[in-house]
Amino acid sequence: MTTFEALYVPAPLREAVSDQSWLAAMLQAEQALAKLTGAEADDDVFRPESYDIAALCEEGRADASPVVPLARALRERAPGAHGPATSQDILDTASMLVARNTRSLVIAELDGAAAAAVALAEAHRSTLMSGRTLLQRARPTTFGLRAAGWLVAFVEARRRLIDAHLPAQLGGPVGTLDPGLMSRFAFELGLEVPVVHWHSDRGPIAELAGALDAVGAACGKVGLDVVLLAQNEVGEVSQADAGGSSSMPHKQNPAAAVLARACARLVHANASLLVGGEHELDRAAGAWQAEWPALSAALAFAGGAAAAARRSLERLQVHPDRMAANARDLGGDVGAAEALVDRALARYREQE
Amino acid sequence: MTTFEALYVPAPLREAVSDQSWLAAMLQAEQALAKLTGAEADDDVFRPESYDIAALCEEGRADASPVVPLARALRERAPGAHGPATSQDILDTASMLVARNTRSLVIAELDGAAAAAVALAEAHRSTLMSGRTLLQRARPTTFGLRAAGWLVAFVEARRRLIDAHLPAQLGGPVGTLDPGLMSRFAFELGLEVPVVHWHSDRGPIAELAGALDAVGAACGKVGLDVVLLAQNEVGEVSQADAGGSSSMPHKQNPAAAVLARACARLVHANASLLVGGEHELDRAAGAWQAEWPALSAALAFAGGAAAAARRSLERLQVHPDRMAANARDLGGDVGAAEALVDRALARYREQE
Amino acid sequence: MTTFEALYVPAPLREAVSDQSWLAAMLQAEQALAKLTGAEADDDVFRPESYDIAALCEEGRADASPVVPLARALRERAPGAHGPATSQDILDTASMLVARNTRSLVIAELDGAAAAAVALAEAHRSTLMSGRTLLQRARPTTFGLRAAGWLVAFVEARRRLIDAHLPAQLGGPVGTLDPGLMSRFAFELGLEVPVVHWHSDRGPIAELAGALDAVGAACGKVGLDVVLLAQNEVGEVSQADAGGSSSMPHKQNPAAAVLARACARLVHANASLLVGGEHELDRAAGAWQAEWPALSAALAFAGGAAAAARRSLERLQVHPDRMAANARDLGGDVGAAEALVDRALARYREQE
Amino acid sequence: MTTFEALYVPAPLREAVSDQSWLAAMLQAEQALAKLTGAEADDDVFRPESYDIAALCEEGRADASPVVPLARALRERAPGAHGPATSQDILDTASMLVARNTRSLVIAELDGAAAAAVALAEAHRSTLMSGRTLLQRARPTTFGLRAAGWLVAFVEARRRLIDAHLPAQLGGPVGTLDPGLMSRFAFELGLEVPVVHWHSDRGPIAELAGALDAVGAACGKVGLDVVLLAQNEVGEVSQADAGGSSSMPHKQNPAAAVLARACARLVHANASLLVGGEHELDRAAGAWQAEWPALSAALAFAGGAAAAARRSLERLQVHPDRMAANARDLGGDVGAAEALVDRALARYREQE
Repeated sequence: MTTFEALYVPAPLREAVSDQSWLAAMLQAEQALAKLTGAEADDDVFRPESYDIAALCEEGRADASPVVPLARALRERAPGAHGPATSQDILDTASMLVARNTRSLVIAELDGAAAAAVALAEAHRSTLMSGRTLLQRARPTTFGLRAAGWLVAFVEARRRLIDAHLPAQLGGPVGTLDPGLMSRFAFELGLEVPVVHWHSDRGPIAELAGALDAVGAACGKVGLDVVLLAQNEVGEVSQADAGGSSSMPHKQNPAAAVLARACARLVHANASLLVGGEHELDRAAGAWQAEWPALSAALAFAGGAAAAARRSLERLQVHPDRMAANARDLGGDVGAAEALVDRALARYREQE
Repeated sequence: MTTFEALYVPAPLREAVSDQSWLAAMLQAEQALAKLTGAEADDDVFRPESYDIAALCEEGRADASPVVPLARALRERAPGAHGPATSQDILDTASMLVARNTRSLVIAELDGAAAAAVALAEAHRSTLMSGRTLLQRARPTTFGLRAAGWLVAFVEARRRLIDAHLPAQLGGPVGTLDPGLMSRFAFELGLEVPVVHWHSDRGPIAELAGALDAVGAACGKVGLDVVLLAQNEVGEVSQADAGGSSSMPHKQNPAAAVLARACARLVHANASLLVGGEHELDRAAGAWQAEWPALSAALAFAGGAAAAARRSLERLQVHPDRMAANARDLGGDVGAAEALVDRALARYREQE
Repeated sequence: MTTFEALYVPAPLREAVSDQSWLAAMLQAEQALAKLTGAEADDDVFRPESYDIAALCEEGRADASPVVPLARALRERAPGAHGPATSQDILDTASMLVARNTRSLVIAELDGAAAAAVALAEAHRSTLMSGRTLLQRARPTTFGLRAAGWLVAFVEARRRLIDAHLPAQLGGPVGTLDPGLMSRFAFELGLEVPVVHWHSDRGPIAELAGALDAVGAACGKVGLDVVLLAQNEVGEVSQADAGGSSSMPHKQNPAAAVLARACARLVHANASLLVGGEHELDRAAGAWQAEWPALSAALAFAGGAAAAARRSLERLQVHPDRMAANARDLGGDVGAAEALVDRALARYREQE
Repeated sequence: MTTFEALYVPAPLREAVSDQSWLAAMLQAEQALAKLTGAEADDDVFRPESYDIAALCEEGRADASPVVPLARALRERAPGAHGPATSQDILDTASMLVARNTRSLVIAELDGAAAAAVALAEAHRSTLMSGRTLLQRARPTTFGLRAAGWLVAFVEARRRLIDAHLPAQLGGPVGTLDPGLMSRFAFELGLEVPVVHWHSDRGPIAELAGALDAVGAACGKVGLDVVLLAQNEVGEVSQADAGGSSSMPHKQNPAAAVLARACARLVHANASLLVGGEHELDRAAGAWQAEWPALSAALAFAGGAAAAARRSLERLQVHPDRMAANARDLGGDVGAAEALVDRALARYREQE
């Protein structure tokens, strides 16, 4: 249902948030639980190929949850499976597993973008260009400092993404399950141990959504600046593989930068849903069930934004002559631009 | 990429916003244009089966548009095809065709929900129940008036949906194409004729998004009220086919009402993106390209919300004894409730 | 609490949404009701000067409503006042009165902006300039057509604003009051008669919010285009009274265009709240009480956006030589640009 | 312009974000800079009383900034003042000073709310009640665990608020000022030292906005749960000082809980603007200028939400008999509820 998804999001990221991946994550949670509770079940029972996720969703409409039919199917094959969990335990844990897997792909794209920004910052540490405020020429700066600004935003977004807590969920129907079991479950899956269940305290989802929004913002900012600097009248950068036009084959469109901005908007819309929900008592009657598509979309489009920003920066052609020409009336005093580039690079290296 | 989409949205609505439907709509626009411009092309050229939309999207990433490769493929088969259009003409026109087709499905669900509300309003015109403000018992009302309130919201949402203008788009690269051609193109496709091109004036998209949000709100409100009235302690309504729980098989969950609320949230998030974009000069560099997934999602989830509200109302069991018991301390004066039910029913009948 | 409000919003608009204006509107509603119900009360009782709105709000915190203490104060002075109304009747009716008064100010600014766009469209009907898509030069157009595009968006936003229904509210505690009384009340105040009470069906608020968002979008678009065309490297327009800079006195900032964009963002954030609420049963426990500041802000910033767009357009200096120079490689074929300008002007004249 | 602000926000918080406080913060930044750059200026020059902020804003409309006229006024009194700063340096630094001051007030309210939650969790560690999922009775839990859940959300929101970085800003017109000066400036004001200027990298604003949204969500959740548990049919809690109704004096409205929810919605709308902006090159032409009212509103309403949640919890009357009665069919097995309460309390104590 996500229109033109291959346009925005590279295949591995699309797969990481696919229904098949969600199913695999739910089964991974179920299997970990079965192991802890000593339920006897063949490994086959937990293979995603054994289930038809579309059919489970169709069936699950009657329960507002795909886990109710999944648990039924599981129990048919292995009576002790699903154990003390509630469907929210399985889905919330699965969402964290999906988030963890997708996050690593987002970070890989972000790292690629950061590396490209580093290269630009180093190469153009002293390349004079016009600084622009309110889109008016102001004072000189260097292109390296502009790239360093992008870099710092990448580094911060990465930090927030890594700092986002990804806790397991195992509270049972109303969140009163033994914390010891919850801890072993979390350990088994490599997730964090929450203080108490978070069935209706969506702090972890909101924090993750905020971090994805930060990724989108950092990448959208790159897209915006590239689009502005690539205007014909400015001409300070161009895309090596600029996109074409269906009606004007000669036109050079900064397609990757445009997609970075589009993805950033799509991240923000979905993140806003994830941050703003009200969850009733021990499980929400609507706000929770709205999270799954929004979380997948926020993750995937964040990855799409990072991939597009990376592509844009990796293939960015910089035109110092044009920069110099545009800045010719501003004098050549770039202040501490170079020292600031060095600060940004040092900050980048610190994170590693 | 839309997680669990079969959970939220009935199959016809999912198909109506699928990539295949978008492709068919783009080709319908191309064919109408070819006809008008006298381009020679077999009907085969415009069959969706002749193209691989996923591959076009993958390829289109270089251009931030799936139409650039599509136009290339079309021209290979029929050199005069695509004619004077720009990719935005094709995509915007396609979005209006997709919207029109999907809208009729949304309206059908909404009409079903409205019919169910009518039946409830008529049957319970005088059924005493407690009115509740700030979730506190206030004064008596009738369940018929509550249903009438839902009905009026459906009627208004339907009106806004039908009133939403669905204009064709045919401006060429920068919107300077002959308005006569634009008019014939619109006529050919049964779309409205815009005053001037709307490449970067997204009024029509925003108006449609606002109407979809109204559908979501009307349906989400039903979901919310049903969920509240179905609480065990209130017990004034229940769902005939209440959903189960993976851990508590005895539990009666108002699943359809819950899904109506979830869908309403998903509509709102996507509608907000569609309403809030800034589009630069003659075509936006990011805000436009973010619209397609958001529009599909807003349409489909609006349909999902209406289908869920309909399901909830069609299978709603009303418990007048419980209503009476809960209202026993409030006296029996329902004021003009019945007259107001009649007003709402009259308004509903007027629309037909 | 609205930081720097004089920066964004002209004084009459600020006053129109001030607490004092809300108080006056509440008292106007109370007075109309007193008249209808034959309550004996001096005119003095309904003078805003007789009450301290800040104190009422402070006191109203205990009731989550300023009307509870206001009604108490009224009844002390005129025992029959406030009659059968509930606080929501008074506040919702007051919000519609405030909206009506403020809307006329918004429309006046919008009309000024439209008149300025008309003048530009006429004067520059044939002024050649570069069309730009994805911020890249594409094909020639005329500046008149650009202005005509702005004009059409103003006309549509105005239409939506005027079409927004502004109904009175008079349902009593749970919306069961006599519709005849409601009709007379509405007539007395010059507001529309709703089908049934809309205490928890916020369609009218959402429709108004959508229209205000359309005003913001139309004005923000002007701001965006002006800012882009005023870039030094583009230089096709400038602001006659460009703003300065605290550190670079020579700089020419398109301040009005910038403020139009800022206001548009503020409208959108507040409108999104107004569109997206869930209202429980007969009165919401939170979503309703969040509307008042958001409605005032959406109204005032919409007016601010229109005033800023107007100022920007009224003082816009157009530089045809620069436009011609920037378009020199594109040929001179502006297609039907002039005919499209005429269509837009005809549409504008139709509305009058 | 913020309608009924005394209804939502306690006076100290309103003052902390008032124009007068923003002016004082701007002058504090100016004074720190003057000291560092050795500009000679009397202390009087930096007294807020010396300036008329409304007049500065009115005048600043021509520049889209109140700092341009302020800097002019400063220089008249002390020629060397304002020094190398740009208006964004002063405003961004002022926004961080305002944020710091207001944050401490928000935290004080949050701490009060947390203390009340602690008291409830301790007192009701073992108080049996029904757990509810999808608003249906599910399994037993304790009221202490519910309060513990609220507590954990407060603790996490507080952590995010404290972790939010509040950097000084001192980049000069295009962000090339000496980082040494920036560091001394930050030190002087007790703010953090950013890596590079953040004129158009709004990471710090977004992180703060996310934290305020988390405060709103934690408080809104309390409001929602209280409103639900205070329903007449549920009757498990009530507010000691429940609000009244203008038309039904006997009614007991959970006013504080309602206001907590209203404030949470207002925080979210404003935070969403702060998180989602696109800032062009070295200073945005619109997105930046939209931040000030939204930041003040997000801060103040977050404080209002915390104050209302606190008031609601401090005056919460718990009805264990009713809880027991409502849970009578669920058995008495509360699982590890008590152990989980202890975990939450331990986590709370850790933070201190």
